[in-house]
Amino acid sequence: MLSPRVWFSVRRGLSRSLSRNVGSRTSGEGRKVDIAGIYPPVTTPFTATAEVDYGKLEENLHKLGTFPFKGFVVQGSNGEFPFLTSSERLEVVSRVRQATPKDKLLLAGSGCESTQATVEMTVSMAQVGADVAMVVTPCYYRGRMSSAALIHHYTKVADLSPIPVVLYSVPANTGLDLPMDAVVTLSQHPNIVGIKDSGGDVTRIGLIVHKTQRQDFQVLAGSAGFLLASYALGAVGGVCALANVLGSQVCQLERLCLTGQWEDAQKLQHRLIEPNTAVTRRFGIPGLKKTMDWFGYYGGPCRAPLQALSPTDEEALHADFTNNGWL
Amino acid sequence: MLSPRVWFSVRRGLSRSLSRNVGSRTSGEGRKVDIAGIYPPVTTPFTATAEVDYGKLEENLHKLGTFPFKGFVVQGSNGEFPFLTSSERLEVVSRVRQATPKDKLLLAGSGCESTQATVEMTVSMAQVGADVAMVVTPCYYRGRMSSAALIHHYTKVADLSPIPVVLYSVPANTGLDLPMDAVVTLSQHPNIVGIKDSGGDVTRIGLIVHKTQRQDFQVLAGSAGFLLASYALGAVGGVCALANVLGSQVCQLERLCLTGQWEDAQKLQHRLIEPNTAVTRRFGIPGLKKTMDWFGYYGGPCRAPLQALSPTDEEALHADFTNNGWL
Amino acid sequence: MLSPRVWFSVRRGLSRSLSRNVGSRTSGEGRKVDIAGIYPPVTTPFTATAEVDYGKLEENLHKLGTFPFKGFVVQGSNGEFPFLTSSERLEVVSRVRQATPKDKLLLAGSGCESTQATVEMTVSMAQVGADVAMVVTPCYYRGRMSSAALIHHYTKVADLSPIPVVLYSVPANTGLDLPMDAVVTLSQHPNIVGIKDSGGDVTRIGLIVHKTQRQDFQVLAGSAGFLLASYALGAVGGVCALANVLGSQVCQLERLCLTGQWEDAQKLQHRLIEPNTAVTRRFGIPGLKKTMDWFGYYGGPCRAPLQALSPTDEEALHADFTNNGWL
Amino acid sequence: MLSPRVWFSVRRGLSRSLSRNVGSRTSGEGRKVDIAGIYPPVTTPFTATAEVDYGKLEENLHKLGTFPFKGFVVQGSNGEFPFLTSSERLEVVSRVRQATPKDKLLLAGSGCESTQATVEMTVSMAQVGADVAMVVTPCYYRGRMSSAALIHHYTKVADLSPIPVVLYSVPANTGLDLPMDAVVTLSQHPNIVGIKDSGGDVTRIGLIVHKTQRQDFQVLAGSAGFLLASYALGAVGGVCALANVLGSQVCQLERLCLTGQWEDAQKLQHRLIEPNTAVTRRFGIPGLKKTMDWFGYYGGPCRAPLQALSPTDEEALHADFTNNGWL
Repeated sequence: MLSPRVWFSVRRGLSRSLSRNVGSRTSGEGRKVDIAGIYPPVTTPFTATAEVDYGKLEENLHKLGTFPFKGFVVQGSNGEFPFLTSSERLEVVSRVRQATPKDKLLLAGSGCESTQATVEMTVSMAQVGADVAMVVTPCYYRGRMSSAALIHHYTKVADLSPIPVVLYSVPANTGLDLPMDAVVTLSQHPNIVGIKDSGGDVTRIGLIVHKTQRQDFQVLAGSAGFLLASYALGAVGGVCALANVLGSQVCQLERLCLTGQWEDAQKLQHRLIEPNTAVTRRFGIPGLKKTMDWFGYYGGPCRAPLQALSPTDEEALHADFTNNGWL
Repeated sequence: MLSPRVWFSVRRGLSRSLSRNVGSRTSGEGRKVDIAGIYPPVTTPFTATAEVDYGKLEENLHKLGTFPFKGFVVQGSNGEFPFLTSSERLEVVSRVRQATPKDKLLLAGSGCESTQATVEMTVSMAQVGADVAMVVTPCYYRGRMSSAALIHHYTKVADLSPIPVVLYSVPANTGLDLPMDAVVTLSQHPNIVGIKDSGGDVTRIGLIVHKTQRQDFQVLAGSAGFLLASYALGAVGGVCALANVLGSQVCQLERLCLTGQWEDAQKLQHRLIEPNTAVTRRFGIPGLKKTMDWFGYYGGPCRAPLQALSPTDEEALHADFTNNGWL
Repeated sequence: MLSPRVWFSVRRGLSRSLSRNVGSRTSGEGRKVDIAGIYPPVTTPFTATAEVDYGKLEENLHKLGTFPFKGFVVQGSNGEFPFLTSSERLEVVSRVRQATPKDKLLLAGSGCESTQATVEMTVSMAQVGADVAMVVTPCYYRGRMSSAALIHHYTKVADLSPIPVVLYSVPANTGLDLPMDAVVTLSQHPNIVGIKDSGGDVTRIGLIVHKTQRQDFQVLAGSAGFLLASYALGAVGGVCALANVLGSQVCQLERLCLTGQWEDAQKLQHRLIEPNTAVTRRFGIPGLKKTMDWFGYYGGPCRAPLQALSPTDEEALHADFTNNGWL
Repeated sequence: MLSPRVWFSVRRGLSRSLSRNVGSRTSGEGRKVDIAGIYPPVTTPFTATAEVDYGKLEENLHKLGTFPFKGFVVQGSNGEFPFLTSSERLEVVSRVRQATPKDKLLLAGSGCESTQATVEMTVSMAQVGADVAMVVTPCYYRGRMSSAALIHHYTKVADLSPIPVVLYSVPANTGLDLPMDAVVTLSQHPNIVGIKDSGGDVTRIGLIVHKTQRQDFQVLAGSAGFLLASYALGAVGGVCALANVLGSQVCQLERLCLTGQWEDAQKLQHRLIEPNTAVTRRFGIPGLKKTMDWFGYYGGPCRAPLQALSPTDEEALHADFTNNGWL
């Protein structure tokens, strides 16, 4: 458990004193942190009574540690962050940090609805060891989340964050695409290093790469389903739920793309689309966790209101893996 | 400030001991609490430095207290609840309770993303004086929010809530309509007394009334724009942002509907549509708060990332009131 | 069969010579035609080999003639107009005209994608006996159907139409809501007498009534599901698919609304919602035609690609009528 | 002008006698026609009085003939086909055929709302020289366009078409994605050779390629914005509005993809995204035609209700080309 002291110090304006550290991951020559690579967005394991199971979390990380990932995303959408208390969110990041070698990058989801809460959470995430803050778009008042509002939000967060910030656009959950003009404007902020885009529109991904080429701005695909296409358009990596179960294969796809073996990449990509859709859009986190159980990880239950899959859904999920030769 | 003790006692399983109180507002003969009437969803006033301004809150309540409202909704979407900390949410409810006569009903928004957090917040809301818990649909994982998941969620909350529960469906914010079959099933729960429906589909509202007629289940319109139509279809009241500025008029519309003066009701309703759209869908809470300033209440700023209106938007907002004779 | 001569004369610029007749249904004092009342949008009966079955059409009209409808809508969405050739569209209108007493108003759907084709079809519809042209929004290029484009389109059509024009907005089919500002502008055209709005948003319907009150502009609800609500907001009637099978009941609902018997109206409206949804949004024209078979009309098959209902769907359709006491 | 005789013979059941020719473009060994390559979807030029300008059409084709296109798409969405009469549609195809060398493939859009009309139009298109029929999904009754309905529709058309059929899914216009399972089923039809997919979801494109790999089924990207990504996923070409003005560049992009020069392809693709969006989603056919005027083709006016661009829009359109170095 995170000590109350840390948590309270965070809440009491620590952000002010920390703001001098802006860009701490920026090297002397002004190059931003390099986030290129593959990341599994780690799930949060729960016990049967819905407590966070830190032991299982470490076991999963240990197994995932055998793949050539660039690092881990913690508290992304797949981490069920909206179901965790603030201190659970921080404790999970803290545990992952402890279980993760320093050469692996830790991207921690620190987005909240209000700008102030996001700033505080970002600062706290940095304190417990996150290397980069991944900040999802606020969305409850999506009708008012204009480019101006979002630019204001992210600028404030990036100004006050002691660690680099990655924008995070995930319309399937938020009902909101971070607008192109906001992305381009924000790419010029010295403490914003990239975007994780989960929308799946590669035309947009290509345009982001194109319009931010003078900035040192990096794009991560938010799903394995369009990973090859994203590489082809200039993305530098991906945050892929599927990497929680097919880590080796997703890393292999990365390697094939980076070494220009596009034909083999295509064949592999094809076989990953259905499994990927199954553990994301189709069956969500319950599907991902069930699959983790099959692949030797601890998946376990989700927190309510997320429900376990029905037997019929489990069968369909299984078929999406067997039909492509993965089970 | 809410004492830490109350907050912690809430967090530590108080829900269990409280569950015996289920339905405490249910009278001896088994009749559920009567929620019929008009409610303004009160806004949360902030100072220039974004602190909750409890003094202004009380002043606003004092002024609103002169209208024949059934009560107040606190921590609805217009209360910027996603921007408040848990203790702020509770403290606001507590203050409103203190400032509100006992004969006014206090509906407090207690929805969170997880079932467990919602239960805890609901219990806490009851402790600080809420009469009824208004529980918004969880929505971040909307792709998995099936009827089954939502029925499970609300049943759990209603089982453990010491006060009656009102379902709250607001698709403009959540991207999710509480499905009809879930509403019908949940209407049979002894501790679920009604629904606030902000979707604006009166065919749906009529069908909810029709299909729950054997239950003692009450429907509140979630906006003044379709208040008359909702009464005509069998709704018993409304939670109307517009009542924060045109309280007298919204109550008059209620009276005209209840006394069958439909022609006058129609004329009044017509003049309320544009102002209502202006302070809801069109300009959101920044529009509502700006209008409150005009009408002698304290509106003040929103918390970021919500932005103040541009001068052009302010003009359009003003026109929507002047064109209908309200300013 | 319509003689080729009529059809060709229509195609060759008849519109020019006819334009002097603009507003022919407008009485001397400048009052527009009164379209207030209930209309069934008649279906187009087909034989087993998908030919138009004019005999069955007349039989249906004969039976429908016993209800106090204001008239008939021909070639609305329920008439499968997109599946008919131009000459079939005209022939159907012609036959309906012959089978319909002069005191019944004939509203004929004359919308096409291009302005020019719509003008020609409108003129032809007038020639074969339509009293009013009901013109659906063009929609294939909906991304470019701005208010300006739609105002231009309808103005041209109304300028050249020898009969009054009713706007027709049906977003479920067109993916397009005729924008409010376009409606208000077009309401000022002397040859545009009203709108049939099938969107189901009664806030919008109320606002249309309110903002066109100085014009002699009439609003028809496009479905029986929100008929009561539309009357309550100032609509003057409805075009209701359900009236093809529950004609008496829909007319009774009209009467209850017009005579201010809102409680009885509400009870009746409630029982019509599910059957109405069943024959519109839920099961479409195949559902409507199947129900017509049950109620003693000729429903028969639809033209492909519309498919007959599955047995399961038929059961659900049947239940929506039996559960509400209509079968 | 198409002779009336051809048109009428088409209308009178020619389809029956022609059905023996099914698969006429299929070679002896059973290989389907090869549609791989780039196609501009040619626009339909109109005079100032909105007549089809066949002379300008031929001039445009003459200029387009200098690029290494696989052929032309006629009567696609960019051809304003919904604004043409049936005989105009056929006459345009006929003229394009005459102006096009035999080694260029002619894909003609023959989709109508009804299955029967689509069959007839397809047969007529074949008679006037189309090599392949490109059949858009019917969409007015999109709520009923289930996989079953669409499979039935396309099977009928393909059964009776004397020329191979390409499926055409363009959700921006139709509000409808041809469902994956329907695509897979239809790919097994001997006379269905591929799909033009304009939805822009490359995950879907990859999955279509993957799931139809045992069939000889070819995928064409429906827009230049995701052309590179589509090639990377296994598409064999593209139908690109942009090729009407940047024909050389689109063909160069094809070549770079086919020869594995992915880095150069990426750079070129990046510079084509904004111009492509400008002449498609952003400014539609009016934007495309205006750009054609700039590039030495005849663009000219659209048929109403499509409107010319405003000066402001023209400037923005121009900037999308100049900013990327094309003007």
